[in-house]
Amino acid sequence: MTPPDFFALDRSDPLAGLRERFRLPEGVVYFDGNSLGALPAHVPGRIAEVVATEWGEDLIASWNHHHWIDLPQRVGDRIGRLIGAAPGQVLCCDSSSVNLFKALTTALGLNPGRRIILSLADNFPTDLYVAQGLAGLLGEARCELRTVSAGDLSAQLSEEIAVLMLTQVNFRDGELLDMRAITRAAHEHGVLVIWDLAHSAGAVPLALDEWQVDIAVGCGYKFLNGGPGAPAFVYLASRHHSRVEQPLSGWLGHAEPFAFNPAYEAGEGIRRYQVGTPGIIGMSALDAALDLFDATSIEALREKSLTLSSLFIEGLEQRPALAACDLLTPREADRRGSQVSLSHPEGYALAQALIDSGVIVDFRAPDVVRFGFAPLYNRYADVGVALDTLERVLTTDRLAHFRDRPRAGVT
Amino acid sequence: MTPPDFFALDRSDPLAGLRERFRLPEGVVYFDGNSLGALPAHVPGRIAEVVATEWGEDLIASWNHHHWIDLPQRVGDRIGRLIGAAPGQVLCCDSSSVNLFKALTTALGLNPGRRIILSLADNFPTDLYVAQGLAGLLGEARCELRTVSAGDLSAQLSEEIAVLMLTQVNFRDGELLDMRAITRAAHEHGVLVIWDLAHSAGAVPLALDEWQVDIAVGCGYKFLNGGPGAPAFVYLASRHHSRVEQPLSGWLGHAEPFAFNPAYEAGEGIRRYQVGTPGIIGMSALDAALDLFDATSIEALREKSLTLSSLFIEGLEQRPALAACDLLTPREADRRGSQVSLSHPEGYALAQALIDSGVIVDFRAPDVVRFGFAPLYNRYADVGVALDTLERVLTTDRLAHFRDRPRAGVT
Repeated sequence: MTPPDFFALDRSDPLAGLRERFRLPEGVVYFDGNSLGALPAHVPGRIAEVVATEWGEDLIASWNHHHWIDLPQRVGDRIGRLIGAAPGQVLCCDSSSVNLFKALTTALGLNPGRRIILSLADNFPTDLYVAQGLAGLLGEARCELRTVSAGDLSAQLSEEIAVLMLTQVNFRDGELLDMRAITRAAHEHGVLVIWDLAHSAGAVPLALDEWQVDIAVGCGYKFLNGGPGAPAFVYLASRHHSRVEQPLSGWLGHAEPFAFNPAYEAGEGIRRYQVGTPGIIGMSALDAALDLFDATSIEALREKSLTLSSLFIEGLEQRPALAACDLLTPREADRRGSQVSLSHPEGYALAQALIDSGVIVDFRAPDVVRFGFAPLYNRYADVGVALDTLERVLTTDRLAHFRDRPRAGVT
Repeated sequence: MTPPDFFALDRSDPLAGLRERFRLPEGVVYFDGNSLGALPAHVPGRIAEVVATEWGEDLIASWNHHHWIDLPQRVGDRIGRLIGAAPGQVLCCDSSSVNLFKALTTALGLNPGRRIILSLADNFPTDLYVAQGLAGLLGEARCELRTVSAGDLSAQLSEEIAVLMLTQVNFRDGELLDMRAITRAAHEHGVLVIWDLAHSAGAVPLALDEWQVDIAVGCGYKFLNGGPGAPAFVYLASRHHSRVEQPLSGWLGHAEPFAFNPAYEAGEGIRRYQVGTPGIIGMSALDAALDLFDATSIEALREKSLTLSSLFIEGLEQRPALAACDLLTPREADRRGSQVSLSHPEGYALAQALIDSGVIVDFRAPDVVRFGFAPLYNRYADVGVALDTLERVLTTDRLAHFRDRPRAGVT
């Protein structure tokens, strides 16, 4: 079968111009935007301005003059527009893990008399770890984490479950869960739902309000391009606001932080999820990065993402040299996020060989190689390069070269 | 009495040259380094490098190539050198409030059978709020916050108390507590001690290891000059490391984060205090800012700080026009940190009038005006300007001008 004309696809791509708004290194195909989004070209200038002018010149007055004080809410509302949340329900703050701790305690508090957190055994580990940490702190009588396989999920939903905690796109195989249907099924049993949007926000159309999601968390450094370790976000549906307490009751979540009263009184709405002083420099980078989404729509990005990943999957299947690569990601477009994962008996060496050849992917134990598609800057031609490079690596001695290298650091 | 020759003091100040390593706005005397430290001149360049090269060029590989993965430990160890902590006991991470939550749960776990957190009623509110949040989560049977006045503190230390939580320098009046003596007194009753070093780190000589402190937290944006909302830090004495659990068990605190095992297993030593992915840009700013401390010693900084604050206090007392200003800060040098607070019946208007005249201070309800002395960049001449400006404001109609202005935002 003739391979597609990737260059022609790029020429007719209405989103092609957005790539110019990123700084990407020469000679590299970057398929790891699902781990760390690329640098938007205007972000260095914005950070320099925040540092030199807001911090350096205006100093402490910037909390008012440059509205640092409500930056977490402003950035939260901008993220809200990407995930189908009306204003006032999303706060940019802390890390996903910390936000998940708030979310879980919130959910248990909203569902008194129930104590079980239900999740999938292959959920992203930090989600399970945070639930384990909370269960360990509260004790078995008040909290227990129960993990099941995907096939058992609906059967496990019952009046016994307090909260269902799921990640919409699986980090390992890229499978996309049906948020609307699962949320509805959980609610039928009075189960609250927490969604981790780490691999969804900025990549997949979402309608959190419409789908009646209760709580969600997500990170800023993947498809939102907020930079390494960018602050995370948390969504809480407004119908829950008045009834929510969360134990990380720091001063900036207080109703009147600058009254310095000795007793905590939760602030209005989503503000009660704020804890300490926000990291202004990192959050300003994320704020600026979100400008890119003003130039297009999530629907258009999703369409390009699926075309990219479909072309990649078809290439995998059509090239005999790639037969040793097992596709882990669902073949149906509506069941996958914005990444394609394959397993290979020498997955670690394969990932290293690809990276060494300029195709940046990542590896997840034990044998998974992930290709993340970021439609804001990935080209169709990148798919062609990735397939060609895969083929070259697997048909020459490139793989052998990396076979015996020691594994180091973050892989 | 003749006022001191402030310019002569600056000319003979061995630390005077350090001011040139900061960017400070023209025509401004900045006495708010206790709220937000000034911008070190080399930090914008370092941030630009992290953003353009590490993020923009090297992308995901920077977790290894630029050692992002252990940045929290490296910055932690650098802070450790400023607070008398041997390597491996300090981690740079999260906010002070989040770290305090870890610290309190840690301390309760280390002291089984005890449930009371003892603190001072005028501790910084976020410390009290976090303890209230934890007590609310655990319930009265497992945790209770008890607050007392300073005079009652030693009498309240008993075998009933699990942990004593104190801030070494009071945010309102600037009083410095005797960390060594209080820690020793607490230990005599088997009480663990958590110190909040928000206003101490980088300003006051500390010997956490020698004084047998158990746990400490502190922030990066005051005297450490790490920038607005810079990441905080947490210290845990190595003797406790193997016995500590903390419930914010995020993936980067795991013994093998990249094994992606479903069960949490705490990492070695201080690493178990790590939660989510660190904010690299903000933490790199703090890392760079700490270079300034390599050029001097905390002892030299302390000496200059006390000279600055002593001159200011003497000026307050010697100028009849300043009689309406009540000194709140202890007059004895060894009982104050690096700030001087005064109360005035029109404190809010006074603070605004000073700021408008180029002397940047801050206000704390109900009537407190704070002058923070940052010996890395404050000059003796700044003290003269502050005293003259205070006098001018209080003897003209400047105060009236600000009397009826509405209070807005962060004050």
